[in-house]
Amino acid sequence: MELFFILLVLLVTTRAFGEVAERLGQPGLMGELVAGIALGTFAAQYQDLLPQIAGLSASPVFSTITDLGMFFIMLFAGVELQPSRLVEYSKGALAVAVAGMVVPMALGVGLGYLFLPPGEALLAQSIFLGTALAITAVPATVRILMDLGQMESPSGQIIVSAAVFDDVLSLILLAWLTALIGGEPTSGLMVGTLLFKVVLFFVITGLIGVFLFPLGGRFIGLFKQKEFEFSALLTGALFFSVLAELLELHFIVGAFMAGLFFGRKTIDEAAYRAVRAKTSAMTFGFLAPIFFASVGLHLDFSAFTEIPLFVVVLLVAAFAGKFLGSGLAAKGMGLSWQESAAVGAGMSARGAVELVIADIALKAGLFELGDSPIITHMFSAVVIMAVVTTLATPLLLKWIYGSNGTAQ
Amino acid sequence: MELFFILLVLLVTTRAFGEVAERLGQPGLMGELVAGIALGTFAAQYQDLLPQIAGLSASPVFSTITDLGMFFIMLFAGVELQPSRLVEYSKGALAVAVAGMVVPMALGVGLGYLFLPPGEALLAQSIFLGTALAITAVPATVRILMDLGQMESPSGQIIVSAAVFDDVLSLILLAWLTALIGGEPTSGLMVGTLLFKVVLFFVITGLIGVFLFPLGGRFIGLFKQKEFEFSALLTGALFFSVLAELLELHFIVGAFMAGLFFGRKTIDEAAYRAVRAKTSAMTFGFLAPIFFASVGLHLDFSAFTEIPLFVVVLLVAAFAGKFLGSGLAAKGMGLSWQESAAVGAGMSARGAVELVIADIALKAGLFELGDSPIITHMFSAVVIMAVVTTLATPLLLKWIYGSNGTAQ
Repeated sequence: MELFFILLVLLVTTRAFGEVAERLGQPGLMGELVAGIALGTFAAQYQDLLPQIAGLSASPVFSTITDLGMFFIMLFAGVELQPSRLVEYSKGALAVAVAGMVVPMALGVGLGYLFLPPGEALLAQSIFLGTALAITAVPATVRILMDLGQMESPSGQIIVSAAVFDDVLSLILLAWLTALIGGEPTSGLMVGTLLFKVVLFFVITGLIGVFLFPLGGRFIGLFKQKEFEFSALLTGALFFSVLAELLELHFIVGAFMAGLFFGRKTIDEAAYRAVRAKTSAMTFGFLAPIFFASVGLHLDFSAFTEIPLFVVVLLVAAFAGKFLGSGLAAKGMGLSWQESAAVGAGMSARGAVELVIADIALKAGLFELGDSPIITHMFSAVVIMAVVTTLATPLLLKWIYGSNGTAQ
Repeated sequence: MELFFILLVLLVTTRAFGEVAERLGQPGLMGELVAGIALGTFAAQYQDLLPQIAGLSASPVFSTITDLGMFFIMLFAGVELQPSRLVEYSKGALAVAVAGMVVPMALGVGLGYLFLPPGEALLAQSIFLGTALAITAVPATVRILMDLGQMESPSGQIIVSAAVFDDVLSLILLAWLTALIGGEPTSGLMVGTLLFKVVLFFVITGLIGVFLFPLGGRFIGLFKQKEFEFSALLTGALFFSVLAELLELHFIVGAFMAGLFFGRKTIDEAAYRAVRAKTSAMTFGFLAPIFFASVGLHLDFSAFTEIPLFVVVLLVAAFAGKFLGSGLAAKGMGLSWQESAAVGAGMSARGAVELVIADIALKAGLFELGDSPIITHMFSAVVIMAVVTTLATPLLLKWIYGSNGTAQ
């Protein structure tokens, strides 16, 4: 049984690298990502020394652990945020999200038509590149903002709300893309059904969150079992996650919504604080570091050596798309230049969600259609883009916020 | 992705059944076991309704979750107990453990020679029955004592220490049994090497626990990362678990030892309380209920209908062996009749560890050697015995402690 060995190696390495990162004045997440990259590189080089790590990215057991990690990060993000404040910023967030998807999407499709060989798969491959650029990774974004103490700032609230919008929009795109790859006819009806499901999800979770959660909170004291509040929060989050998947959304949206409605209005202040502390321990003390290391573990440098120009162009497009789209939209909503730059930078991290989508495209065979080296190494290029944007986002944000004085 | 659906169904069912159990004045564990049995029976009957549950026992992803459950239960048990008190009771505990293994072992081997057809495999099969009867399941025992509030009572301390001794002894037996099944020559050298490894494990963990843990505790305040104390406890527990497996012990012994040395002497009182609360949430609010349900899920009633006499005799031997062995040893050590009876009952739960050992024998092909119906259904009979003893133990203990007034 190798489970405990793998968890031990990952936990020790991520915490050590995380500590070094914090000593250098950087967020812990950077250390954890670098720990994953270092471990992955080391294990690939010396397969005999660490055979358990080398095959990790493909293990269903390990992806269970990292899924739980994503689940807890999103749940904790929801618990931390106040729904009322999110609603307050939602108009701005929607504009930031839409502009932050349309511009990168256009850049991605343009890149596809510029770099990829013509053929039947060109449309699907270009849409994939567009989707890859349009994504914002909520778990990474949330973690970065927490590390920097900016979750509660206006730009922080806008970034998180917009990232959640973005996530939902990109899942709709993904469903369309999957149909395109499969050669199914994509109709307005399909998109309509999808939109209906998304609306249904938010209506159901909203109604449960607003009416059932406080009702449950009032009766929770009647239960006699140990740790019932913690179980209740998990039950809500698991239920919303299952509902999200049933309605073709990613489970992280469900975990986030459950956390959001579990607030000071649901249970009393002391119970809220206790449950938050417990969720925080499981998240930051155990699963989140392992999750971010797993993102680093997926890195494969082949695109760097085989298609360096494409990688550079993709990276430039990744930052340009979010700065021009989300950043200018934020400016248009009346934020200062500094805050708008922070929004542009904050929306750039693609971390985890990118890997999920690239993986779906990989399994659908999108990178086998055509014999250009760019197509062969596109998966590697997209993963590099995901890791680099996630590493650069906290650096950029720290620099932008830093000119305003201290972070927090 | 079915992970969240399965966790949701198990968490809701176990917490509901657990609440009913507590309302009926029984420990929550009983409700959780029954929840697992009910779910398993229901899923077997209506495979179309709950296909995710029907195949659960064989899923590597699910056994990762239940392994983590066992890990957290043992870790929390260690955190709760005080090493100094365990040492105080260790002489009595050792006698209880040894007598509580020798008597059931003899009964099991006797049963084997009485009921099983003669043949080459008879010795191995009889030793298996003996081992199956000699086991005490530490995670189940610990949970029952905690539910009853008896972890700190003299008999509770003796039961836990003796169960840990028992676990170690049964692992030595198991290694011998595995060699027997494989047809390897079993030599004194092999047993000697095994004993050496076990001693080595306790020496290493003891030295680290006594010297390194307090040293680490003094410097832990210097680290800047969030939730570092919780990570430190997990790191210690993971390291001890890996060490235990390297030295041919079960990982639960490692998790327990790490918890044991993480006490009020390691870090300050406030940090100790915070980390204990966080470990408790993860254990009782999430993983322990799912773990005990999984024990119930393994139940298969075929032995009940096919070899009912053998099942009844096995059950009688299971209780008689522990009452006569452990109970009389406790009386011999000077405990009262009531406390001795509690020790006899408390050592009877075989819950989880039994399943691990039966599974190893199943995979080694022990139940294919010979064509008696008892051999064919022995796996089912042993699982029934494990579940029934685990269900009966809290009932017996409650009855025995109850005659002394309230439980704690």
